[in-house]
Amino acid sequence: MKQITPRTLSGFMELLPGEQAKMEKMMEQLRKNYSLFGFTALDTPIIESAEVLLAKGGGETEKQVYRFTKGDSDLALRFDLTVPLAKYVALHYGELAFPFRRYQIGKVYRGERAQRGRFREFYQADIDVIGDGQLDILNEAEIPSIIYRTFSSLGLTKFVIRVNNRKILSGFYALLGLAEKSGDIMRAVDKLDKIGTEKLRALLVGEELGLTDEQADEILRFISIGGSNAEVLAELEGYRGKNEIFDLGLDELKAVVAYLPEFGVPETNFAVDLTIARGLDYYTGTVYETTLTEHPEIGSVCSGGRYDDLAGYYTDRKLPGVGISIGLTRLFYVLSEQGLLSDAIITSPADVLIIPMAEDLSFAVQTATVLRDAGLRVQLYTEKKKFKAKMTYANKLRVPFVALIGEDELAQGKVSLKNMESGEQTLLTPAEAADAARRLIQEKECEKVIRG
Amino acid sequence: MKQITPRTLSGFMELLPGEQAKMEKMMEQLRKNYSLFGFTALDTPIIESAEVLLAKGGGETEKQVYRFTKGDSDLALRFDLTVPLAKYVALHYGELAFPFRRYQIGKVYRGERAQRGRFREFYQADIDVIGDGQLDILNEAEIPSIIYRTFSSLGLTKFVIRVNNRKILSGFYALLGLAEKSGDIMRAVDKLDKIGTEKLRALLVGEELGLTDEQADEILRFISIGGSNAEVLAELEGYRGKNEIFDLGLDELKAVVAYLPEFGVPETNFAVDLTIARGLDYYTGTVYETTLTEHPEIGSVCSGGRYDDLAGYYTDRKLPGVGISIGLTRLFYVLSEQGLLSDAIITSPADVLIIPMAEDLSFAVQTATVLRDAGLRVQLYTEKKKFKAKMTYANKLRVPFVALIGEDELAQGKVSLKNMESGEQTLLTPAEAADAARRLIQEKECEKVIRG
Repeated sequence: MKQITPRTLSGFMELLPGEQAKMEKMMEQLRKNYSLFGFTALDTPIIESAEVLLAKGGGETEKQVYRFTKGDSDLALRFDLTVPLAKYVALHYGELAFPFRRYQIGKVYRGERAQRGRFREFYQADIDVIGDGQLDILNEAEIPSIIYRTFSSLGLTKFVIRVNNRKILSGFYALLGLAEKSGDIMRAVDKLDKIGTEKLRALLVGEELGLTDEQADEILRFISIGGSNAEVLAELEGYRGKNEIFDLGLDELKAVVAYLPEFGVPETNFAVDLTIARGLDYYTGTVYETTLTEHPEIGSVCSGGRYDDLAGYYTDRKLPGVGISIGLTRLFYVLSEQGLLSDAIITSPADVLIIPMAEDLSFAVQTATVLRDAGLRVQLYTEKKKFKAKMTYANKLRVPFVALIGEDELAQGKVSLKNMESGEQTLLTPAEAADAARRLIQEKECEKVIRG
Repeated sequence: MKQITPRTLSGFMELLPGEQAKMEKMMEQLRKNYSLFGFTALDTPIIESAEVLLAKGGGETEKQVYRFTKGDSDLALRFDLTVPLAKYVALHYGELAFPFRRYQIGKVYRGERAQRGRFREFYQADIDVIGDGQLDILNEAEIPSIIYRTFSSLGLTKFVIRVNNRKILSGFYALLGLAEKSGDIMRAVDKLDKIGTEKLRALLVGEELGLTDEQADEILRFISIGGSNAEVLAELEGYRGKNEIFDLGLDELKAVVAYLPEFGVPETNFAVDLTIARGLDYYTGTVYETTLTEHPEIGSVCSGGRYDDLAGYYTDRKLPGVGISIGLTRLFYVLSEQGLLSDAIITSPADVLIIPMAEDLSFAVQTATVLRDAGLRVQLYTEKKKFKAKMTYANKLRVPFVALIGEDELAQGKVSLKNMESGEQTLLTPAEAADAARRLIQEKECEKVIRG
């Protein structure tokens, strides 16, 4: 038989079972937490008509799109979950209730240059709230709570949700007579973390932007406003009354900050940060970034914001919204690289491995059924191997429990349940073994997938 | 702005939120049940190198494959989950423990002719147990238990897992001196359900197969062997001792039947059925089909079998296995068409919709947080709409509970929790409301997604 060397394409993540178990746990937590905030699950095709997917056209993204023909159809793979959402809402408008809250965790495709840590197929985990014509500010205020609860449930403690409002920025730039350069300035300021103050200053007064020294100073002074949230907001109050857009943005920012305690978000995990703008002009109000305190080099692991026009390329209806996205594959990759994924969670395919050592398997199978009825994940190991090989298998899988059934156990209708961590071995009936195993498993299930 | 009419490609399933909720529940049940049998979750890329994916080559499948180039890479979308599994096991052989048990629920792609109920993008939900060189028969015996538990958990009661063994068939055909025509005869017999006995007979004695009348009679008599499992097995014993392969197959079939009671599979949901062969030559031992008793026209909803050589196109290692597959998208479609999906399960994005009617939202937000802490899925509805519009929203989402917070409730630190089904309304503290809502929600969560 002619053989082909098996391989997986570069830029495509394919995990070993133990790692995949951690990824599954992360996805499960995301689904669970997004659901707590009343988001409905959505699933849209990975393939769409190229015309529909690229309606907006242009830009870097289009070059990266996987596009091809099948028969006489011009097709493309989705490169994010936002465009398919826009299509979905425009297409099914009449059948949806607004505000429409959906989450989607799905693979997207970008033909990026292959390099370590860059993926061509990767999961995004998005939530969006879409309004019909209008959308109350409380939806924006709720987002930090969603981020906080989600990351906490994953096990992260040292992270900061950084929030700003684009109206404050554009209002402020208008104040300086820089309304038309507002977008370009925001994109420059957005680089502050990467390039530092000096280089940002050079960028502002440089040829391209052409600001005066005074304007650059004003901007640098403005974005350096710091302190507690209350202090930042107080200082911003000093600019009030000079520009309508600014004032509106300040009101929105204050509304977002106002309910944080009621939403259960500690002040330590939240910061008003005037340097954040998000690159995209798409955003029109509150913007969010989330950074790991001890790993700023990773950049934002959860970003998003408020937008006014989700689906202008498909419909005349005004569909404003607010959303955030987690680049799940990349997040998983960097957490793994940093050694931040916990080994305390159960990654084995089974909670209990049953090893029968007698000829008749009836009792072993009965035991498996009793344990499964109790919600335990069970493997029956009946391969013809030596005992040592069987235990090697158990160790390789890292199963928490082995249930041994030899002639002695069989005669008593019991199993020897061995805790693989402590080495402790107890003779128990199947029902007792189920109880004993469940206690430890339930404990382990509370372990978080990320440490730190 | 130039607008494009939004559309979804034909042959691609895109569900509305309520329907998607049912699909999500089905997937959750599959994950849960597959896990109970010690299968580990796997996720492989949707895009693979065309050379790797099409290593086996030829056949109907290849014509349907989505194949395209990106840069200078010849790529293809996976058309099933078996070929990627073969690649995975061959590629990661050294890092896996055998038997390797994996489940995968993922989208696959086939450019079928578009017609109602045919999908070009669809989910398969597969499990496989892969042995290294050998694999014990108990793995085959366990499969009916997995099918039984999975379908039962979905709510199906009237279904039959039909089991046969290809060795019995090929042994029997060898007995008749038809060893070389064995595969072709099996494919003909496989059509019995669709074409009936008379047409099958015509096919057997027809030009292509060219059997004698006596041979055809023998075959028809053989496949008509019926009755209880014990009766069928007893009748098969009559053929023992004439052909080694037959005898081996009979031993295997008896082993599969032997542990059914211990695996908790009722006799009513299981049948030895000598007419089943599965079309593919790939299968070498036990084969499985699962049919809905009252909807035979749907055909098998869960099929599979034992094979001896998973990855011969990638490796010299002998990797035998046994697996089954559910065509989830098609199953969902036909269940929906037949009206077999239950409306009793919760399909709303939230368990409780909080409707604040006072200016200050602090208490409403606090209430949301208390309910979420209790595991309830909560939406805060703060859009500026009339009360009637708010209740219309609640009804459209089909939320089980609405929590009203007016000035009266606020003054008492309570909410009016309205059960939307019974219409009953009770004044409760947030903690009491959480308890009350959870009781009903937990009840509803036990509802099965399929009726019958």
